[in-house]
Amino acid sequence: MSFELSLNTGTTPNLSLEQAAEAVAEAGLTHIGPWRHLLEQAGGAQRSAAIIAAAGLTATTLCRGGFLTPADAPGRRAALESNRAAIREAAMIGTAELIMVVGGLPAAAHLIDGRGDAVEQSIADKDILGARERVAEGIAELVPYAAEHGVRLVLEPLHPMYAADRAVLSTLGEALDLAAPHPAQTVGVVLDTFHVWWDPQLREMIARAGAEHRIASYQVCDFNLPLAADALKSRGMMGDGYVDFPTISRWVAEAGYTGPVEVEIFNQQINDQDAAITLETMKQRFAQLVLPALKGARPAAEAPVR
Amino acid sequence: MSFELSLNTGTTPNLSLEQAAEAVAEAGLTHIGPWRHLLEQAGGAQRSAAIIAAAGLTATTLCRGGFLTPADAPGRRAALESNRAAIREAAMIGTAELIMVVGGLPAAAHLIDGRGDAVEQSIADKDILGARERVAEGIAELVPYAAEHGVRLVLEPLHPMYAADRAVLSTLGEALDLAAPHPAQTVGVVLDTFHVWWDPQLREMIARAGAEHRIASYQVCDFNLPLAADALKSRGMMGDGYVDFPTISRWVAEAGYTGPVEVEIFNQQINDQDAAITLETMKQRFAQLVLPALKGARPAAEAPVR
Repeated sequence: MSFELSLNTGTTPNLSLEQAAEAVAEAGLTHIGPWRHLLEQAGGAQRSAAIIAAAGLTATTLCRGGFLTPADAPGRRAALESNRAAIREAAMIGTAELIMVVGGLPAAAHLIDGRGDAVEQSIADKDILGARERVAEGIAELVPYAAEHGVRLVLEPLHPMYAADRAVLSTLGEALDLAAPHPAQTVGVVLDTFHVWWDPQLREMIARAGAEHRIASYQVCDFNLPLAADALKSRGMMGDGYVDFPTISRWVAEAGYTGPVEVEIFNQQINDQDAAITLETMKQRFAQLVLPALKGARPAAEAPVR
Repeated sequence: MSFELSLNTGTTPNLSLEQAAEAVAEAGLTHIGPWRHLLEQAGGAQRSAAIIAAAGLTATTLCRGGFLTPADAPGRRAALESNRAAIREAAMIGTAELIMVVGGLPAAAHLIDGRGDAVEQSIADKDILGARERVAEGIAELVPYAAEHGVRLVLEPLHPMYAADRAVLSTLGEALDLAAPHPAQTVGVVLDTFHVWWDPQLREMIARAGAEHRIASYQVCDFNLPLAADALKSRGMMGDGYVDFPTISRWVAEAGYTGPVEVEIFNQQINDQDAAITLETMKQRFAQLVLPALKGARPAAEAPVR
């Protein structure tokens, strides 16, 4: 089967891993993409693997590693340590795909807490070029370890509104350039519609990502306006905002992608509602707006099928 | 003289054109970039030209034309009419540079009021590719009229967070591609640091813009976090946010730009304070963060000096 729908647990932040896994199974889905803090709450990656298996599910991704922009040696060591732990956890729960949010400008990045919630910033270092260099160095340093564990570092370009505090990696093209020195089975990219829908080079870069065998995950959620008071929570259920899902999904399929499709929505109202309702809506909108375009598209002849 | 500091009246929204012109002159500055509604409030472009001249000032730009994305014939006709009027007004107040904010997705664009304030959206059309095509067609239609009046259509890439409701033109590279079919004296680009600071292709595209003689204006203001409740007002005084002004300003000068530098800040606190304080702070921050890099940079040998 192709294009399996997967719940990213960021969509149901009030549920434990066990609760989320049960809700997914009850909704008739077979895939889940957990966040690391859920693994920790569940007693570690090994127990988490058992929970996921007991619900009859497969893990699609692990969220997340990254935050590689600290400029000081202790910050840098801590970041690499945390990423190595994340690589081991991904392998333990049986997914090859570790999502990487690369980090923002250093002072701000230091002030992001474990769940990635932004706290107040006091800025010292505005050198975005330097921050990007440190990301490249960090990735290079992690590649051998990831390869040993059969895990892929999946670079996530984030919407440019998060360039200062969360990810100095803002476009798919930039992610592919950052991945280029490394093997495709060890460094990939994730396409999240919220982050990239506006990009004038999107079609071209999705095709390039496919041709370079880098597409590790396709995540769908909408871009809502007005932006939420917490800008992170401006994501919406597919169809509620401005994203043209049929067009982007067609491009993704034409690039040869046939893997799972994850739904990751940070949105106060959706996060607070009954997970069964969220899962039902997800299924409907996916069937209506995303899946037909994925299935209808004919992959370009030279694109690999994963 | 080069690199004259100019007040964009968006920074002082509570002042009439006459009040803004007086404040600028009292601050010892010589340039102003007015918005169209101020011209209208002052009794038209001709009276406005007299006000600007009486204060001993020169107009650097006129804000703004654009909003070329309507999909229906009446909306399209109205947009072209409004742009032709803006072209005449720019010529009348003695500036060649008409800033163009190209417009968002149609349903949203229809619901933006005269000053560009976003109102609630109800979305019908999410075809961003189609909207971009209509922008290209609209520009092509306006070029002969602009050329007749000695006015340049200055394309402004806006931050991608405004792609849905304000401008489907999000990067400098895309602006240059859109300008490419037309003469450089009739279609240019404006570089606003708030909108473009995050772009991984920024250095390369600024160099390209210089080589193609397209840089019509350099606007400076900072990118603040957290985003303001009204996302439009997230701009900050230079130095208060995340933009690396020395680096970007050096690139602009290396590209051969020697024209005025405008300050356009939508920020509730700055907009509400005494304009004399704003102008004084502007002058200090410009002298500290922007001007040294502009003056210190050696233009690339092949870049033209305007």
